[in-house]
Amino acid sequence: MTARTPRYSGVIPPVVTPLTADGELDRASLERVVGHLLDGGVSGLFALGSSGETAYLTPGQQDQVIEVITAAAAGQVPVLVGAIETTTNRAIERANRAAELGADAVVVTAPFYTRTHDIEIDRHFRDVAAAVDLPLLAYDVPVCVHSKLDPELLLPLAADGVLAGVKDSSGDDGSFRRLVIGARELPGFSVLTGHELVVDSMMLGGADGSVPGLGNVDPHGYVRLHEAAVRGDWAAATAEQDRLVGLFDIIRAARPGTASATAAGLGAFKTALTLRGIIATNVMSPPMRRLDVAETATIAECLDRAGLSRA
Amino acid sequence: MTARTPRYSGVIPPVVTPLTADGELDRASLERVVGHLLDGGVSGLFALGSSGETAYLTPGQQDQVIEVITAAAAGQVPVLVGAIETTTNRAIERANRAAELGADAVVVTAPFYTRTHDIEIDRHFRDVAAAVDLPLLAYDVPVCVHSKLDPELLLPLAADGVLAGVKDSSGDDGSFRRLVIGARELPGFSVLTGHELVVDSMMLGGADGSVPGLGNVDPHGYVRLHEAAVRGDWAAATAEQDRLVGLFDIIRAARPGTASATAAGLGAFKTALTLRGIIATNVMSPPMRRLDVAETATIAECLDRAGLSRA
Amino acid sequence: MTARTPRYSGVIPPVVTPLTADGELDRASLERVVGHLLDGGVSGLFALGSSGETAYLTPGQQDQVIEVITAAAAGQVPVLVGAIETTTNRAIERANRAAELGADAVVVTAPFYTRTHDIEIDRHFRDVAAAVDLPLLAYDVPVCVHSKLDPELLLPLAADGVLAGVKDSSGDDGSFRRLVIGARELPGFSVLTGHELVVDSMMLGGADGSVPGLGNVDPHGYVRLHEAAVRGDWAAATAEQDRLVGLFDIIRAARPGTASATAAGLGAFKTALTLRGIIATNVMSPPMRRLDVAETATIAECLDRAGLSRA
Amino acid sequence: MTARTPRYSGVIPPVVTPLTADGELDRASLERVVGHLLDGGVSGLFALGSSGETAYLTPGQQDQVIEVITAAAAGQVPVLVGAIETTTNRAIERANRAAELGADAVVVTAPFYTRTHDIEIDRHFRDVAAAVDLPLLAYDVPVCVHSKLDPELLLPLAADGVLAGVKDSSGDDGSFRRLVIGARELPGFSVLTGHELVVDSMMLGGADGSVPGLGNVDPHGYVRLHEAAVRGDWAAATAEQDRLVGLFDIIRAARPGTASATAAGLGAFKTALTLRGIIATNVMSPPMRRLDVAETATIAECLDRAGLSRA
Repeated sequence: MTARTPRYSGVIPPVVTPLTADGELDRASLERVVGHLLDGGVSGLFALGSSGETAYLTPGQQDQVIEVITAAAAGQVPVLVGAIETTTNRAIERANRAAELGADAVVVTAPFYTRTHDIEIDRHFRDVAAAVDLPLLAYDVPVCVHSKLDPELLLPLAADGVLAGVKDSSGDDGSFRRLVIGARELPGFSVLTGHELVVDSMMLGGADGSVPGLGNVDPHGYVRLHEAAVRGDWAAATAEQDRLVGLFDIIRAARPGTASATAAGLGAFKTALTLRGIIATNVMSPPMRRLDVAETATIAECLDRAGLSRA
Repeated sequence: MTARTPRYSGVIPPVVTPLTADGELDRASLERVVGHLLDGGVSGLFALGSSGETAYLTPGQQDQVIEVITAAAAGQVPVLVGAIETTTNRAIERANRAAELGADAVVVTAPFYTRTHDIEIDRHFRDVAAAVDLPLLAYDVPVCVHSKLDPELLLPLAADGVLAGVKDSSGDDGSFRRLVIGARELPGFSVLTGHELVVDSMMLGGADGSVPGLGNVDPHGYVRLHEAAVRGDWAAATAEQDRLVGLFDIIRAARPGTASATAAGLGAFKTALTLRGIIATNVMSPPMRRLDVAETATIAECLDRAGLSRA
Repeated sequence: MTARTPRYSGVIPPVVTPLTADGELDRASLERVVGHLLDGGVSGLFALGSSGETAYLTPGQQDQVIEVITAAAAGQVPVLVGAIETTTNRAIERANRAAELGADAVVVTAPFYTRTHDIEIDRHFRDVAAAVDLPLLAYDVPVCVHSKLDPELLLPLAADGVLAGVKDSSGDDGSFRRLVIGARELPGFSVLTGHELVVDSMMLGGADGSVPGLGNVDPHGYVRLHEAAVRGDWAAATAEQDRLVGLFDIIRAARPGTASATAAGLGAFKTALTLRGIIATNVMSPPMRRLDVAETATIAECLDRAGLSRA
Repeated sequence: MTARTPRYSGVIPPVVTPLTADGELDRASLERVVGHLLDGGVSGLFALGSSGETAYLTPGQQDQVIEVITAAAAGQVPVLVGAIETTTNRAIERANRAAELGADAVVVTAPFYTRTHDIEIDRHFRDVAAAVDLPLLAYDVPVCVHSKLDPELLLPLAADGVLAGVKDSSGDDGSFRRLVIGARELPGFSVLTGHELVVDSMMLGGADGSVPGLGNVDPHGYVRLHEAAVRGDWAAATAEQDRLVGLFDIIRAARPGTASATAAGLGAFKTALTLRGIIATNVMSPPMRRLDVAETATIAECLDRAGLSRA
């Protein structure tokens, strides 16, 4: 087996997007989030991912997010930027804007809203790569786009230099394993997992790194987990992962039946960051509500149990 | 039962978006489509719907489409404009742009890409309505957005003046029937069906009108169907509908396994319009391919069987 | 168009299966249900359909149901019997048992639990038809079996004499319309709809009859609806249908979050029949619960509003 | 953490059901399969699972399978028997029959075909456990039954002594991890994974064992994998797993578009066992077809690449 030299590896959290009370980007809080993540030892930042409320931000707000994150990162780690748009031309437009604003790479899903087909998904990635002068990563997220990127689709795109990597949030382990095995002949291609609850397992299976939403809350923990896995200390990796699984209970703080899974999950990340003193408010983009005082108290307990400091 | 006085009724086709060979908006062809539809007797135009490749057009291209259609319609019929965006702020931005460009109403779906919840969908429509100074119609299209708008959600929004109508493409007949019955106390609220193959049945059940993609190809047929239904000539309505069901076979012209249902369907509409001499090319937005010569020949046969003139 | 001579037409309710307090078949109540339905003027009985809790009954209980229904029907109307089993050999075994017990026809779904394919579904129906000496109807119920029977699959089976008819509970109106149109060349083939809320619309579109679960509660209403449709009195048909849609609100009596849709719906049918004095209890098969006193009171109100007598 | 003492652990393959040319149970071949598995060192046998074509076998055929497997196992390892039926009473009937025929435990899914609800699933398992005098395992297989068994449902059932274990084929890693962590307080409860492509990862995450369909073809490999994981030799475990992932390519031998995933997968297992000289034919239950000569040749190549002997 050739030694892997993936362009992107380690922990690359999908950065949350803090908002002010009136729903505008909270630049100071976002800068603090970046500082918090860099302090945790992350090896990259993923701006405008699902955890960054990308689907909730206007193009203008997205531009602001890219500006703040690239400025705050200041070249210490690469900034991957999501160009999460329904189809090719729209993704190209956003990807090129990201390039202008200093992104190091762009991340694109399969077409959504519209029905699609593997032939069209293939052309989609090829067209985006041809039109954008940055490395391109595919984002496999069937829960959002309702189609799956199979290894049979991804590996030829990787071999042809169209894709520099993939973020897999598909939950299809068998597919992921076959992707990892296929990628052994593509040592520079990055295989990243978005499954924050089983990063240890995915690393054992051959992932190059992770993109954990929960990594916003505890980047140090995910970095310890990654490093333990890299050095083969699986007992340490699983212990760290188990602790983080416990921390993930914050997403169950929202009262049942009162919010979407997205609002409950991202709301919990923001609330935890507020409790940790990193961001100013847990305001969510409309139409999502913010978590309330009782829900916040539940999250505080989870932080305490996980051994995380609070402000 | 109160007599219905819906703001929007009759046949309101979702206007296709013709493209030039290099993928730009073909303004002259789009003007001819509008003329063709007005000649057919339609009572409104729906710009930037799914059939208009709205998910494939950049904001700039969408602006052009609105400009051309509103100019060509010249106030003869209302122009409803889709603001099909993932979430609230994005939909508001596009809806307000449509208002600036002369739209008479805007059409908005539930949030998509992200996971959502009825409470959030309710707030979504309320926030959009509050921010946009145009009538708002809800677009119920689970095949695209993966959630369903139930009568229990829609009717209170209608009663509160948030929604002026709904375009139902859900395929849930029971839900549609309960919506129609509930709307009897809301005589101005428009209940439109997007199910082009059963407009007669939906009219019998109480629909105020239809939004048939196939109406681009044969607006005269759909207007005859609507008028027959309105005057209670159900034999004529079903005969016309049956002929249109036969015409709809054009969507099966694409070779199996070579294109998405969207590419096959919208591609067939465009190809038929090319054959009928209305638009210049059947070019599709990337990553969709255009139908080829053999597929076009199949569509020509369908047009002939349905008794439609060709150029 | 050839005049239709379908073997099965009119209203063919899927007969509920009354149980005693200890969960055994309540033969006397079932006999009364059959009498009630025959009194209502139904033209057939569908035993062991989804509404008959077929999936909840052991083979022995199913045998008892067939015995009671065929005896009570006494040849006045045909008795169609569901052989709802996961795959071919199991369906054949149950279908042959139904034949022994006096069934007039058998009703079979696509394979379920297992994943399947159109080629296998085709063989499935052919194998069943070859092994069973009774007319065979296909039951298209994707909500239960998670695959759809397309006209392209069904019509050749009908043309080859494999299928005598179809009960369509797919909710796919376009598919149903194409099936009806295709069946015009097969005048004896029965196209029945299971969509009890839009029987008028389906009849307008060309259905030969209906299989309404709600027809257990109000067979007279469905028969009036059918007869109005047959004579082309669509105003009367839709008025009757609208009343029945109101009656269908009984399925919303179960407190939200406390029962499956099946338990809420079938439980409501049974509770209504109890209130009407037809059956002795509203006991459900495990693991479903029976509706309680408060829920029963809600159903009583629905019956009153729909003008149905109570015992 | 308490040391785990799960009743069932190690490799427990879901035993395939060999058929004769005329579709009857091939007892001699099934005995050889059991011998082959015992020779491989498996620690249990799962009869009448999905891989055993359980959904394709009549009750009579299922009885024969249980008889042959329990006789051939002769008490060397426990025999778990699937009672895969749509609902409670049917599952109880089959489970009690399995008990009579010598099963050591029974395996039951959530209700299927019908729609269900967590409250009903909970009662389902409780009713089955109360009626059957054998340990009960839950089988979490959403791809077949279309509902998911969450840890919040399973763990109380385990704590109450209703469930002795679970076979997880859900593909939901996060759920599985939370189940494993919750099961730490239930040392005797068995958490088994059905994900044959990532057994190493699932073992790292805390699984007690695996139920790999592919284990029919290469039980020795899965046992080596299990043993490596148990002793913490993760490099050996992943190497073994990677080899087995390669072997799993046999399921892609069926020509695309000609068979269901079930027919392709189980057909490949049977074909491989034929090539290995264990069973006499690769005949499948109707309506599935058997793989042909060309497809068999592809499978032979996979066996060679994986280093497996052929007859």
